Amino acid sequence: MEDRFQPDEPQKAVAVGEVIFGGLEVVLMAGPCAVEERESFLACARALRRLGVRVLRGGAFKPRTSPYSFAGLGRAGLQILAEAREYTGMAVVTEVLDPRDVEQVAAYADILQVGSRNMQNFALLREIGRSGWPVLLKRGMAATVEEWLLAAEHLRAAGNEQIILCERGIRTFETQTRNTLDLSAVPVLKQLSPYPVVVDPSHAAGKRELVGTLARAAVAAGADGLLIEVHPSPAAALCDGRQSLEIKAFSQLILDLRKVARAVGRLIRSDEWVHRTADQKPVKISQGVANDDY
Amino acid sequence: MEDRFQPDEPQKAVAVGEVIFGGLEVVLMAGPCAVEERESFLACARALRRLGVRVLRGGAFKPRTSPYSFAGLGRAGLQILAEAREYTGMAVVTEVLDPRDVEQVAAYADILQVGSRNMQNFALLREIGRSGWPVLLKRGMAATVEEWLLAAEHLRAAGNEQIILCERGIRTFETQTRNTLDLSAVPVLKQLSPYPVVVDPSHAAGKRELVGTLARAAVAAGADGLLIEVHPSPAAALCDGRQSLEIKAFSQLILDLRKVARAVGRLIRSDEWVHRTADQKPVKISQGVANDDY
Amino acid sequence: MEDRFQPDEPQKAVAVGEVIFGGLEVVLMAGPCAVEERESFLACARALRRLGVRVLRGGAFKPRTSPYSFAGLGRAGLQILAEAREYTGMAVVTEVLDPRDVEQVAAYADILQVGSRNMQNFALLREIGRSGWPVLLKRGMAATVEEWLLAAEHLRAAGNEQIILCERGIRTFETQTRNTLDLSAVPVLKQLSPYPVVVDPSHAAGKRELVGTLARAAVAAGADGLLIEVHPSPAAALCDGRQSLEIKAFSQLILDLRKVARAVGRLIRSDEWVHRTADQKPVKISQGVANDDY
Amino acid sequence: MEDRFQPDEPQKAVAVGEVIFGGLEVVLMAGPCAVEERESFLACARALRRLGVRVLRGGAFKPRTSPYSFAGLGRAGLQILAEAREYTGMAVVTEVLDPRDVEQVAAYADILQVGSRNMQNFALLREIGRSGWPVLLKRGMAATVEEWLLAAEHLRAAGNEQIILCERGIRTFETQTRNTLDLSAVPVLKQLSPYPVVVDPSHAAGKRELVGTLARAAVAAGADGLLIEVHPSPAAALCDGRQSLEIKAFSQLILDLRKVARAVGRLIRSDEWVHRTADQKPVKISQGVANDDY
Repeated sequence: MEDRFQPDEPQKAVAVGEVIFGGLEVVLMAGPCAVEERESFLACARALRRLGVRVLRGGAFKPRTSPYSFAGLGRAGLQILAEAREYTGMAVVTEVLDPRDVEQVAAYADILQVGSRNMQNFALLREIGRSGWPVLLKRGMAATVEEWLLAAEHLRAAGNEQIILCERGIRTFETQTRNTLDLSAVPVLKQLSPYPVVVDPSHAAGKRELVGTLARAAVAAGADGLLIEVHPSPAAALCDGRQSLEIKAFSQLILDLRKVARAVGRLIRSDEWVHRTADQKPVKISQGVANDDY
Repeated sequence: MEDRFQPDEPQKAVAVGEVIFGGLEVVLMAGPCAVEERESFLACARALRRLGVRVLRGGAFKPRTSPYSFAGLGRAGLQILAEAREYTGMAVVTEVLDPRDVEQVAAYADILQVGSRNMQNFALLREIGRSGWPVLLKRGMAATVEEWLLAAEHLRAAGNEQIILCERGIRTFETQTRNTLDLSAVPVLKQLSPYPVVVDPSHAAGKRELVGTLARAAVAAGADGLLIEVHPSPAAALCDGRQSLEIKAFSQLILDLRKVARAVGRLIRSDEWVHRTADQKPVKISQGVANDDY
Repeated sequence: MEDRFQPDEPQKAVAVGEVIFGGLEVVLMAGPCAVEERESFLACARALRRLGVRVLRGGAFKPRTSPYSFAGLGRAGLQILAEAREYTGMAVVTEVLDPRDVEQVAAYADILQVGSRNMQNFALLREIGRSGWPVLLKRGMAATVEEWLLAAEHLRAAGNEQIILCERGIRTFETQTRNTLDLSAVPVLKQLSPYPVVVDPSHAAGKRELVGTLARAAVAAGADGLLIEVHPSPAAALCDGRQSLEIKAFSQLILDLRKVARAVGRLIRSDEWVHRTADQKPVKISQGVANDDY
Repeated sequence: MEDRFQPDEPQKAVAVGEVIFGGLEVVLMAGPCAVEERESFLACARALRRLGVRVLRGGAFKPRTSPYSFAGLGRAGLQILAEAREYTGMAVVTEVLDPRDVEQVAAYADILQVGSRNMQNFALLREIGRSGWPVLLKRGMAATVEEWLLAAEHLRAAGNEQIILCERGIRTFETQTRNTLDLSAVPVLKQLSPYPVVVDPSHAAGKRELVGTLARAAVAAGADGLLIEVHPSPAAALCDGRQSLEIKAFSQLILDLRKVARAVGRLIRSDEWVHRTADQKPVKISQGVANDDY
């Protein structure tokens, strides 16, 4: 990694339970766009857990361009997320939209997500900053790297340095993809900032058939993690089904990603590793399997 | 205006006191970027009032890309705005950033401004929607017209149809201007929506020497109003001084704008008209002048 | 025009016969996208002439994104253009695509057009530069103002200062219009360069119902001329029919434009003026009418 | 590669001597931006040859935004390129700018490059199409994938299917990089077209410290080759020195790239392989070494 900047200020790894962002591991985060229904969400979570996914994603509060689209289950969604966390032992990341919801969401989630539309919602950033909770800060739709880092500075100025940056594509004239994934941002951010950088290939591509390729490229570009939309039944998803992978395809992709990670001196945990080291939680998984209660 | 769409749904004029957006008049809105200091703000307001400006702008809560920039006087700024309104009889427009501030700001302002960074801050839109207060909805930095109209739909879905759209430039690769003013958006919005459309040439240009030309073009393009940054002493402004006009230059510009407005069958009120028709308020102005107390 | 820069280097007006670009007059240039058929083209030219149009446009060599689209009549198109010039007395502007065609096209046209796709075709610029022929240099699809002026510099370095710049919209993420017309470029270019600036609202808009509004705005922004696609029967046009005005709509538009021009201290010639001053040519028009031979 | 489209029309590999684009191998192409001086160019070529580079790049005719920048050595540059080819056995790629130069350049080069500024220079495309010579078609600065493929169609319509597409970044608002590398274009093109796709990370990044990361990502994204600017002494380069790698850094990079290639089931040839298989040419290299004449 000859092109990684060595700033005086050391890289700040962010620890979320056992998961370290910004270390050797490329952290897999996955899950459906939205928490839609308890049974299928828990089944999906369990399947992802078995694949070695470390952080479960799922939206309870969804920002929607149109007011008439499904906007999430709200508090009920948070409870399902918490249940999934309890059973699988995975950390949970979910978006918060309103400064008044920060406390409530922080009670259920391990990482608070700031979405693209809110990257410069300074009231929200201040509240999250004060909470001190780990935060995943997505790049704005057309934000420059400089503006993005200044948004991070709003979090830091409010007292929070547990910041993970997430590149998710920027807006250009190209229409073949939903957004244009800017992988150059990964090394640029590593030069200019101390924060871990993860990549969301799903929102960038907008089409599931491109997600695998972009995920591989992101790992090769030095991403510290991936945020991928996976849905047990994409065709039935209430949002973003077009860009969601099925679990089987995702499971194949992880094998590919592990090879690329190794090629660039990084690591993607396997499920075996998880079972061996996370002693306590997998018991619950087994129980869950035995009881077949979700 | 052969290219104005005649939708089944009639154009919705928005009335703010005596001022009608979406009628024959091209409404002049002007003022400093931020409310900085009481005396000079009131003096500026009075001067603008005499030029025929109908709506006074001034930020009390300022969204700032960097957390270390001047972020406005907050509630103290609102009080100065209210005072200026009281003395001059002008309506007041100011930005609200936080859903928790909507009620407070609405107590002081005639029009609530949603800034570019918050066009898709849906929590804020919902709260403003519920307030029923007239709202100036600025286009997001890189928002499509469709997304912008869907943001307006969030206001409408929450019960508010008092919507004024404000084009303020979009983000492109060009660096000679701060943003690229998209005047095509004016006729496009008039075809696709029932809302009045105003134009902010100051934030688009980012340089005061371009503001006059863009303002003239905006009136010719059919804008229902203009939002222009004017500062008594731009060099000393705490924000956006580079794009603010001095009062004298602005006063010259109004003469030009009036000619263009007439050429496209529109009207810009003159100060005389204001004095003749708005009987009650100008008395206060005169008192203000006599007392010289601001 | 308080915002017009006064450089040491004076503005360079470009004279094409009787027509002066960069003077008091806002020069009207109009015609179909392509020269398609002799009879209808000559009829169209005559009609435009009567409306006071000063320069006739029409493509003989058409750059086409797809190789399977109509690419113009080539030399036969040039001859029809020359015939129209002869009968109407209008100057003619047409595009040249290939450095090997410069001499041939210059034999038929008064102004050589460099299209957007060729703004940085340096071999072509050099050849046109050497010809010394007046040139209309369109802005590249995504060219910065700086690159555009450097393209003009290629013409100047080859010995040609008869340069007219033409803003025709830039590429952005917005899809309601074919391109985003950047009217800020007009005052910016007037500050940074000595060349006349004209505006093509037709290619920017891509929809005829927006052309009128953008043309009015362009005149208000200080454009030295307009290049507008007009077709006797847009629905039957072999290219760009969607954005072409009918002659009747164009004739109405000119009345509007004349008012806006007057409002900003400029002038659009009327047909009467043309008839009075251009003594010799109109005779031919009358003959043409009498003979009804086109 | 689950996301590679299987069209009815098979992928068209392009063979240039022994080098196959679109096969298992990820083809390395490298060299200075411009051919500047014979001795150093030959030395550079020899060094690159030893690293396993398969195609030598170097501009003899340089398109330059400003007419006052170094525009290449022209025919003299072609001769140096041919000499390098002769001594090293590498294939040579160089840009052609003018349709009148196609025949001449084809006499010296193995692959004709169409640069970004000329992607829609249809006169040039037609001439290159007729030549039947392998062509490297760079994406235009702000070209959509669709326009790019239609530009390729111009080559095909003129009889040439030896087409290699080269992604080199597109223009966006981001200023940290010269362009924004659009790696999504690689899988998109593989779905929509039969052509090999290579990536130029140097022009995309504009800064040498980003080139390695983007090159690794490009290989992971499925690129069929890389085009990288390497200069024996970047600080002294007459053009694009800021984005050129030194030979030593490039040599390190190749080791990294080989690992990534292997991880995605591809291959990057090593120098040993080249020496073993390309019997005839390496002798000349040895002679060159013995004679030390360049």
